[in-house]
Amino acid sequence: MKEIMAVIRMNKINQTKKALAVQGFNSLTCVKVTGRGKKKVNYELIEKMLEGEEEIIKSKEVTESITEGHRLISKRMVISVVKDEDVKKVVETIMNVNETGNPGDGKIFVLPIEDAYRVRTGESGKAAV
Amino acid sequence: MKEIMAVIRMNKINQTKKALAVQGFNSLTCVKVTGRGKKKVNYELIEKMLEGEEEIIKSKEVTESITEGHRLISKRMVISVVKDEDVKKVVETIMNVNETGNPGDGKIFVLPIEDAYRVRTGESGKAAV
Amino acid sequence: MKEIMAVIRMNKINQTKKALAVQGFNSLTCVKVTGRGKKKVNYELIEKMLEGEEEIIKSKEVTESITEGHRLISKRMVISVVKDEDVKKVVETIMNVNETGNPGDGKIFVLPIEDAYRVRTGESGKAAV
Repeated sequence: MKEIMAVIRMNKINQTKKALAVQGFNSLTCVKVTGRGKKKVNYELIEKMLEGEEEIIKSKEVTESITEGHRLISKRMVISVVKDEDVKKVVETIMNVNETGNPGDGKIFVLPIEDAYRVRTGESGKAAV
Repeated sequence: MKEIMAVIRMNKINQTKKALAVQGFNSLTCVKVTGRGKKKVNYELIEKMLEGEEEIIKSKEVTESITEGHRLISKRMVISVVKDEDVKKVVETIMNVNETGNPGDGKIFVLPIEDAYRVRTGESGKAAV
Repeated sequence: MKEIMAVIRMNKINQTKKALAVQGFNSLTCVKVTGRGKKKVNYELIEKMLEGEEEIIKSKEVTESITEGHRLISKRMVISVVKDEDVKKVVETIMNVNETGNPGDGKIFVLPIEDAYRVRTGESGKAAV
């Protein structure tokens, strides 16, 4: 069993949920998160700006650092625990729905799950997934 | 060390917290999440309904698909990192408190933790759990 | 690849974010959580208090159990997925910024990540981190 942990755009959650359900993966958990990607933040520039240096405030680089780089953006984390043999299909399904080609499309991580339990029945292992 | 990650009913969080504390497991983290289980969603039916087909709108199957199947339900995720030898006790404690016998009782997953650190003291490994 | 999962004080999130960015770790995800640490909860005392035993209500021990022990405190969970060789640096950076010496400074856990994907490009493995 594996945990698929995907961080995606807020407005992609319904499409993702539906695409997974169509493939037979109904079970999922969704978390409101904020986040940022790899884009480098220029804190020196931001500080100069906060000190009020006119030229810096107007520079395009600063505007980008602040609006895209510095802040944490609202995202959704989707967690789904699946059988080993389903990892590829679930990852591909999430990729297909979420790829726009623009930065911020998100990431998908695969983590090992050692055991699983369904609370209602007490089933464990694969039977609980 | 293992991470116990349980997704349970919203209204079970206090009982779960207390039951764990009584067993000596005080330390936990709680996250507001939404989620759904395995129940199959009939998207075809939902779409027909949205298109306004009277007969479909009134059918019991649609009502169920929408009210129980389609939506993500508010849940709580409880995360507790415990020593290997305590996994069984923690899982059983969470199961006992959360089993109502109805769908939606939730799931419990066990993940491996490779290392742990207590920020205040710098302790690591088992000593930090 | 590893997941660094840190639970820290609410008011430390900006400092943590900045300290990580300065070290070159820009990418992170942040979750609003509530939690509590190891401090033992005396449920017996709390119950007596709720039953209205005057002497108990006024005792210092009860006040502490309730205000510090019983409640879940607002915290932030910071999740960052990094290369194996960067785990030490990231853990140290988070420790340095968050250590106040008081209970509640938080914990850091290291989990294995088996695979990673960047949705925009389809890159996987280390290239996606």
